[in-house]
Amino acid sequence: MAAPATTAAATASYPKVSTKHISLPTNHHLNLGFLSQNPIRIRPLSRSCSRPPMRVLATSATAPVIETGNSSSSVVPTIVDVDLGDRSYPIYIGSGLLNQPDLLQRHIHGKRVLVVTNTTVAPLYLDKVVSALTVGNPDVTVENVILPDGEKYKDMDTLMKVFDKAIESRLDRRCTFVALGGGVIGDMCGYAAASFLRGVNFIQIPTTVMAQVDSSVGGKTGINHRLGKNLIGAFYQPQCVLIDTNTLNTLPDRELASGLAEVIKYGLIRDAPFFEWQEKNMQALISRDPDAFTYAIKRSCENKAEVVSQDEKESGLRATLNLGHTFGHAIETSYGYGHWLHGEAVAAGTVMAVDMSYRLGWIDESIVERVNNILKLANLPTSPPEMMTVDMFKSVMAVDKKVADGLLRLILLKGPLGSCVFTGDYDRIALDETLHAFCKS
Amino acid sequence: MAAPATTAAATASYPKVSTKHISLPTNHHLNLGFLSQNPIRIRPLSRSCSRPPMRVLATSATAPVIETGNSSSSVVPTIVDVDLGDRSYPIYIGSGLLNQPDLLQRHIHGKRVLVVTNTTVAPLYLDKVVSALTVGNPDVTVENVILPDGEKYKDMDTLMKVFDKAIESRLDRRCTFVALGGGVIGDMCGYAAASFLRGVNFIQIPTTVMAQVDSSVGGKTGINHRLGKNLIGAFYQPQCVLIDTNTLNTLPDRELASGLAEVIKYGLIRDAPFFEWQEKNMQALISRDPDAFTYAIKRSCENKAEVVSQDEKESGLRATLNLGHTFGHAIETSYGYGHWLHGEAVAAGTVMAVDMSYRLGWIDESIVERVNNILKLANLPTSPPEMMTVDMFKSVMAVDKKVADGLLRLILLKGPLGSCVFTGDYDRIALDETLHAFCKS
Repeated sequence: MAAPATTAAATASYPKVSTKHISLPTNHHLNLGFLSQNPIRIRPLSRSCSRPPMRVLATSATAPVIETGNSSSSVVPTIVDVDLGDRSYPIYIGSGLLNQPDLLQRHIHGKRVLVVTNTTVAPLYLDKVVSALTVGNPDVTVENVILPDGEKYKDMDTLMKVFDKAIESRLDRRCTFVALGGGVIGDMCGYAAASFLRGVNFIQIPTTVMAQVDSSVGGKTGINHRLGKNLIGAFYQPQCVLIDTNTLNTLPDRELASGLAEVIKYGLIRDAPFFEWQEKNMQALISRDPDAFTYAIKRSCENKAEVVSQDEKESGLRATLNLGHTFGHAIETSYGYGHWLHGEAVAAGTVMAVDMSYRLGWIDESIVERVNNILKLANLPTSPPEMMTVDMFKSVMAVDKKVADGLLRLILLKGPLGSCVFTGDYDRIALDETLHAFCKS
Repeated sequence: MAAPATTAAATASYPKVSTKHISLPTNHHLNLGFLSQNPIRIRPLSRSCSRPPMRVLATSATAPVIETGNSSSSVVPTIVDVDLGDRSYPIYIGSGLLNQPDLLQRHIHGKRVLVVTNTTVAPLYLDKVVSALTVGNPDVTVENVILPDGEKYKDMDTLMKVFDKAIESRLDRRCTFVALGGGVIGDMCGYAAASFLRGVNFIQIPTTVMAQVDSSVGGKTGINHRLGKNLIGAFYQPQCVLIDTNTLNTLPDRELASGLAEVIKYGLIRDAPFFEWQEKNMQALISRDPDAFTYAIKRSCENKAEVVSQDEKESGLRATLNLGHTFGHAIETSYGYGHWLHGEAVAAGTVMAVDMSYRLGWIDESIVERVNNILKLANLPTSPPEMMTVDMFKSVMAVDKKVADGLLRLILLKGPLGSCVFTGDYDRIALDETLHAFCKS
């Protein structure tokens, strides 16, 4: 049992730097009351990271000064480990982590870095990330490629821009790709890293709730095809995931809510106490309470890490993370990217999956109500767009990745809150009834 | 020590079929005199394959009749194992193996197959392969996609045709992709299989010497970028490689010679006795002596399998398989695909690498002469095209995958015949001298 992160004083100095010893302020920004619910996967940074935070400002007045923001920049990150043998990696979570260059720099192996980001995120965080990569580290050079923002650009044409930039910059096998942005950027940058020279290192710096609680963790990468989402891609794990919760300060409300759809999912499929916590704290999340968010992200990453560690390539268990996604993908594909956000489609898809579970007699009506209520509290939709038809759903669902030998398998709730199944063994009539209940034609 | 393959009578019947027992003719087509040079990796098919060859013709007169060709269709395949832990797979080598449906069918896991081939190979072998996949196996359905033939089509646009076909055919994760053709088809189909739904099964059926002795084995897949070869791809291993040496009967002379460049490579980098065998038997290979070819393919695959087993992801040793390829890729990229075949460029590149090794004082002059002589015997070029300039070489070599942190590493011969190094530690003057010796400007 590790003690709460803040009780470990991170005062050991990093061997390479060394001349000055800094005493660090204790962390006064993380409310760790939540941690007692799931303390065993928390460990203090000092266990694996002997370099003190903010070393750069302390050791070199001539080095580029990194914006300190508020005093939370001295936070000791929470670390969640994704255990995948020789592909294991840490997720660092905390506010102001982009002000701790050593966190990123320890995961850069060569001298060349390509930051992949988009037109929305670049003006906000690109300079900060470039500083974090290069300060005190003059041998490293950083290129960047700024892609258009939006799910509709998650395609082969946009991906080729990443390859073009990498090749024109003469990056080699020892380079590192850094994904700076939301889920679309992470998925595309990851797939580009998996494919460039048959695989180079990459790092995820997710800047949306959606990416921080879900898509940046677990190594699913890829792009969309005009006929369906994520049909082309790779399982490819990053070197680390760095979640600076301060990046959420610039996130639009609708994007924030979208990410909460995935947070709610973890509670429904495997973590009833987390769902109950959300029922009590959804208002705090919507109003961006930093402590509530840190906890929700940590708990989500722990759930995801646990599932991915047991089933990296989605032979079974991992598919349960797709609750609501089969219906949701059909909405995104049919309605057109750019109208609804991913989490909005997943929210409506979750209501449909829950409805179907209830029609099958697999869950109590109370769960249906609680799901509807919590999604409403999170400002998320509880039914698909009006233009959706039964045929639209069926047509996209037929090419879902979870179809095996022609049979569509779905994630459905079964039993008490926090229990689900991934199965093709269900009554087709229930699926038809659900589709007709949510579509006018 | 396994006995030679032909002495094991493959008379055990396959459990599922079974009513008839056929006594098989002993193999009288494989001259196994060569095998004594490297017998330990040979094993008779009966060790892992209990179904007798030609079962189909014997058990069902109404099943589609597979062309038997000559009596070599009853050959017991030579098997070379590629040992990669849970990604291990067999290479089957023999004449008429496409007449043995069980060899392919045992590696098909789902009910759907996509054969990826090209406009040259499809008229020759597509029907035969479809029969081999489906005869006695009515549950399996086979789609195909026929791509234009040639290295210049090994690009993203052509790759997308494979994804389009797979998605329009609603193939799912349990499908199998089959690469039927030369190296270009194998590389593209393999990368498509690696990426479709984040990875599906695939099988290699190489139909050129180049693919049979090199590119189909070891899991390197990918496509070209306009700035260089194979810059986008994946390491992705097939379920099996099936080499029917009869397919070489339809191979043009120039393609045949091109493949021999890779055969010669194995001798130079790690197998002096094989090189000496080639010096004595090159005429037999050029005149397509089947026994000589079976041996050359087997020995090449053994060499490749051994290297790949030790270094799947090319962290060092595996790079030695690229002798001559860095110079060769520069020729292919600068001269334009379609003018020279891959092996022709590799042959000229090998001469340049050998020249440079000699300039460095790392090998005897006799090796330089022997390399020139054997390439001439194989009807391969021994110098680059006249249009190549020093700058063209340098420009392409700068984006080679073997560049690390800006330093170009090369495969060079060092020591007695059959010894090489992969190194960035060489005198740049020797490289410059070699480039100037082979270029007019």
